[in-house]
Amino acid sequence: MTPEETYMRLAIRLAQKSVDENLGGPFGCVIVKDGRIVGEGFNQVTTTNDPTAHAEVVAIRNACQNLESFQLEGCSVYTSCEPCPMCLGAIYWARPSEIYMAATRDDAAAAGFDDEMFYSEFFRPNEQRHLKLKSILRSESQKVFKSWVAKPDKIEY
Amino acid sequence: MTPEETYMRLAIRLAQKSVDENLGGPFGCVIVKDGRIVGEGFNQVTTTNDPTAHAEVVAIRNACQNLESFQLEGCSVYTSCEPCPMCLGAIYWARPSEIYMAATRDDAAAAGFDDEMFYSEFFRPNEQRHLKLKSILRSESQKVFKSWVAKPDKIEY
Repeated sequence: MTPEETYMRLAIRLAQKSVDENLGGPFGCVIVKDGRIVGEGFNQVTTTNDPTAHAEVVAIRNACQNLESFQLEGCSVYTSCEPCPMCLGAIYWARPSEIYMAATRDDAAAAGFDDEMFYSEFFRPNEQRHLKLKSILRSESQKVFKSWVAKPDKIEY
Repeated sequence: MTPEETYMRLAIRLAQKSVDENLGGPFGCVIVKDGRIVGEGFNQVTTTNDPTAHAEVVAIRNACQNLESFQLEGCSVYTSCEPCPMCLGAIYWARPSEIYMAATRDDAAAAGFDDEMFYSEFFRPNEQRHLKLKSILRSESQKVFKSWVAKPDKIEY
């Protein structure tokens, strides 16, 4: 068994635990740095009333707390399923070095998870989306960006 | 001032507070249901070491805790800037009724926030992405989905 398979089996085991113990959806994630597990998570949407508590988001938060950093440089993400757009975005923001996945988004769709609908919404221009973004007060918000750009002591991320 | 403008001004005020008090990036969000504010948030990435703590995600978590639900049916989201892919995904999972935005993703990019890079990664096939998804152990993970589908007492979301 390769180290990659060992970590992925752990992620899959977390997914199975979530199903068996009625903790949430069938998804697990493990984050590894320098051969050490620094974060893990399984889906907890329904048990914590948090629609963002997907396995990857939970694992990223866990790893960041453990590493006391808002970045996961040099880390590898092992997720039991191809990330949904929210989780893929969360992974990009965390900036790990690599991502391994097991099941695909098609497998997830076959099990009733509508990531595919989300992906297709993302690819459409706003005016063709089911849930459209309505624009108001743009110039007032732009002023906040101006004060951010001008701020000398900001912490960028 | 329309009610929509009132709520958006609140979201923008939260964004400005985040900048002024050095709490995180220049983003704020307010969630409203039946004319009542049920959740709010501002960016807290750097102060809480949580790369997922964007204004929208924080506000969604806050609203869901207040409403004791993992869904935001009938809610309106007011965000001071067009959501990044992570936040747009989080909004889709929370299933509110409408979204208002003020600044655009181009405004965010001009202020140094690389959502645009993320969006372009999303639109590329995996093999052309900067951060590629590497696939292993698919069939082992598919077994977890099978047990989910067969589970009679699952809570779907």
